[in-house]
Amino acid sequence: MRWRYVFRVTGVLIWCVGATLVLPVAFSVAHGAGDLAALLESMAVSLGLGALLVLPFRSEPPGVLGHREGMAIVSLGWIGAALVGALPFYFAGTFDTFADAFFESMSGFTTTGASVLTDIEAVPHGILMWRSLTHWLGGMGIIVLSLAILPFLGVGGMQLYKAEVPSPVPDKLRPRIRDTAAALWKVYLLFTLLETLLLMAGGMSLFEALCHTFGTLATGGFSTKNASIGHYSSAYVDGVIILFMLMAGINFSLHYQLLVGRPKALWRDPELRFFVGLVAVFVLVCTVDIYGAVYDSLSKAFRYASFQVVSIITTTGYATADYEKWPALSQAILLFCMFLGASAGSTGGGMKCLRIMLLMKHGYRELMRLIHPHAVSQLKMGGKSVPVEVIHSVWGFFILYLGLFILSSFLVAAMGVDVVTAFASVAATIGNIGPGLGEVGPADNYAAMPYMAKWLLSLCMLLGRLEIYTVIVLLVPEFWRR
Amino acid sequence: MRWRYVFRVTGVLIWCVGATLVLPVAFSVAHGAGDLAALLESMAVSLGLGALLVLPFRSEPPGVLGHREGMAIVSLGWIGAALVGALPFYFAGTFDTFADAFFESMSGFTTTGASVLTDIEAVPHGILMWRSLTHWLGGMGIIVLSLAILPFLGVGGMQLYKAEVPSPVPDKLRPRIRDTAAALWKVYLLFTLLETLLLMAGGMSLFEALCHTFGTLATGGFSTKNASIGHYSSAYVDGVIILFMLMAGINFSLHYQLLVGRPKALWRDPELRFFVGLVAVFVLVCTVDIYGAVYDSLSKAFRYASFQVVSIITTTGYATADYEKWPALSQAILLFCMFLGASAGSTGGGMKCLRIMLLMKHGYRELMRLIHPHAVSQLKMGGKSVPVEVIHSVWGFFILYLGLFILSSFLVAAMGVDVVTAFASVAATIGNIGPGLGEVGPADNYAAMPYMAKWLLSLCMLLGRLEIYTVIVLLVPEFWRR
Ligand SMILES: [K+]
Ligand SMILES: [K+]
Repeated sequence: MRWRYVFRVTGVLIWCVGATLVLPVAFSVAHGAGDLAALLESMAVSLGLGALLVLPFRSEPPGVLGHREGMAIVSLGWIGAALVGALPFYFAGTFDTFADAFFESMSGFTTTGASVLTDIEAVPHGILMWRSLTHWLGGMGIIVLSLAILPFLGVGGMQLYKAEVPSPVPDKLRPRIRDTAAALWKVYLLFTLLETLLLMAGGMSLFEALCHTFGTLATGGFSTKNASIGHYSSAYVDGVIILFMLMAGINFSLHYQLLVGRPKALWRDPELRFFVGLVAVFVLVCTVDIYGAVYDSLSKAFRYASFQVVSIITTTGYATADYEKWPALSQAILLFCMFLGASAGSTGGGMKCLRIMLLMKHGYRELMRLIHPHAVSQLKMGGKSVPVEVIHSVWGFFILYLGLFILSSFLVAAMGVDVVTAFASVAATIGNIGPGLGEVGPADNYAAMPYMAKWLLSLCMLLGRLEIYTVIVLLVPEFWRR
Repeated sequence: MRWRYVFRVTGVLIWCVGATLVLPVAFSVAHGAGDLAALLESMAVSLGLGALLVLPFRSEPPGVLGHREGMAIVSLGWIGAALVGALPFYFAGTFDTFADAFFESMSGFTTTGASVLTDIEAVPHGILMWRSLTHWLGGMGIIVLSLAILPFLGVGGMQLYKAEVPSPVPDKLRPRIRDTAAALWKVYLLFTLLETLLLMAGGMSLFEALCHTFGTLATGGFSTKNASIGHYSSAYVDGVIILFMLMAGINFSLHYQLLVGRPKALWRDPELRFFVGLVAVFVLVCTVDIYGAVYDSLSKAFRYASFQVVSIITTTGYATADYEKWPALSQAILLFCMFLGASAGSTGGGMKCLRIMLLMKHGYRELMRLIHPHAVSQLKMGGKSVPVEVIHSVWGFFILYLGLFILSSFLVAAMGVDVVTAFASVAATIGNIGPGLGEVGPADNYAAMPYMAKWLLSLCMLLGRLEIYTVIVLLVPEFWRR
């Protein structure tokens, strides 16, 4: 392990996070500056810590960036960001404990959106802007991670996106990250600009529009209002946010293809068709299910069903209705969406449509094998054969996801939380969704969870966001040998 | 498809089921004969129907019994048994609708033990004996299915038990079924005799002892008392039943090895060690969890924790306590046990320890592959390499199990059942457990479920019991071609 290089990159990341505090500082100044001191202190600590990690190793040549270094940088980078990201909350006294501040920050950078804030509207503007900005930064990180880093590391089937390079040549990792990042961040920035303008056209201030845009595009879900998007009671705002949640739930490399004039790539993508098809079916079923039972007009039923289904399947977690009061079928569908998640290569969490598709195709192939025992059939995706290693990776991811879910639920239940809340809080944090069911439902928050559960759920968010494997390997002694 | 032969074998099975009605008839005569007419009518119909299916095809030579015929016989056999098995309940007026009678019979033959009876103790002895006998017959069927038929059909990883024959030669299926059945049924009969005597020694009548023995060894769970085994409030009875539930949850070929003087085979079996280890850990954790919170003495906590954990993990479903009132951790563990199930080759349901072990090993191997990307490692079980086809079969089974669970839960929820009950009732029927949570918890039954849900859950029991694939292939048009 080339520790010097790992520290240097982590240092750069922390320094960058500190630098972005300039945006909350600006909003703090514009809105009374009550939280200015806390923000400036945090900025100083972050920039200083970053510099401390970079300076001793600044002469370290970039050289070969291997498998292990990649995974160590990703995990340490996210943990480092969450640590310095917690400082503004802690220094401003937003929370009593550092556990709470860290939970909120980790929830931001992992784009989970699970909150321990009880009265969001009482928090000053600078802090709220920082809270939403952590989403946006985390979303940026995820796009690069899932489309440029994980395919090379061979994690959870993401090898499918490994472009044309035949074998994972470590040397190629660094330039590819740079190129991919540059292209995809342009898309991300364009969407940010568009949604902000559209939300402002709907009557939001620049502050609110920016915060909600950050929360949408990162599929984060932090709002500046206690009632989330429901606060605005506006069909226009709902519509804009539904549209951009969907965008955020689609593979960003497809958006890039569209923008460079290859729109056909979108409709040729089997995962996109699957994702859009599922959303359509679920919205339809929920609309019929809640029409009459909850809403007396069909258009209202459609509006609220669309918002909640899209919000949960993209793992955004914004809410305009308390779905725990909906009929059982709608609740069951939303619960299923929590595990499903959006597309691979999007900012969304969960298991991802791509993986579920591969697993379903595998199940179907096994069924066919029973009928024609001697026929050898190849698993295909969008006309191309899928290597068996990819399927094995996906299954490995799947079992690890379930195992982590079960073990963490046991631990949370052991802390005295009721069964439904225990399972739901773990599902909602591993899947990076935010709101769950029971005591952590869409009308509640995580403030009342036991102290230890907050640390455990922070870890769940990190594991879920980094596709589990990336973090777990660091805990295996063999990883450190040689 | 050799339909004539399929009909002949199904006819023989139905005829045999009819013949076994002689046992309930005997108990009916001994206890007032209130239900004698219904039992004799059912016997006449079963024997007649069986003869009708056998006689036209009696000259059909046995010949080659292939893949398709095997699956068709298994599915039709179980459905046929459940249909004629429903007759005594229907003729005796135990239930108002045939749906209820069929549910109870299917629950019996699939050893599920989910009941729609509201007052068990009001039902006459002959009918109760028949109800428990369906468990025992179903259990016999399952032992042969899982150890003699499925290994040859290549369903859900059961190929692992395919002994030494290198490729599935269809000719070999028939003699092997006969030989395996003869050996394993001896074990089953011996256990039946032992448990009956031990329960009678604890004060039960022959009737009660037989009924509860049938329910235990088939991991069925039908009792003759409304309060299940809790009715006896006897540590001795609890102990005997815990012991035999454990026995029933172990691969019956291991019992056979033990009886023919090869006891080492038991402790060399990795699945047995895994199963026993899990039971020990879960009993320990639940004991600590409920001690103080529910029971004030450690011995009582241990006794009730053992019974409930063993009953659920072996998917028997007998109860001595209402675990829905236990602390969250114990509930979470029992919920997990519902999906886990007992050993492959036992009479228990669920996903089975063998499969979960293979999936965990696969997940671990993928983790190691990330650390040593170029090392090729073979998945091993008990020192032997596991062919990749077996792993693929197990994954296929797993995804089909989950898919069926999710789809069925949606349908039950759409029928107006609350979310927890919908998920729990489907989990408890696919896993052939019996009691679930919510409205179908250990202190309730399935009588209040909607009419359509009873049919759907009957189908879930059948699918779960026949390892899903065996039934699902019959619904694929390709199966019927050629
Ligand atoms: K989220
Ligand atoms: K059972």
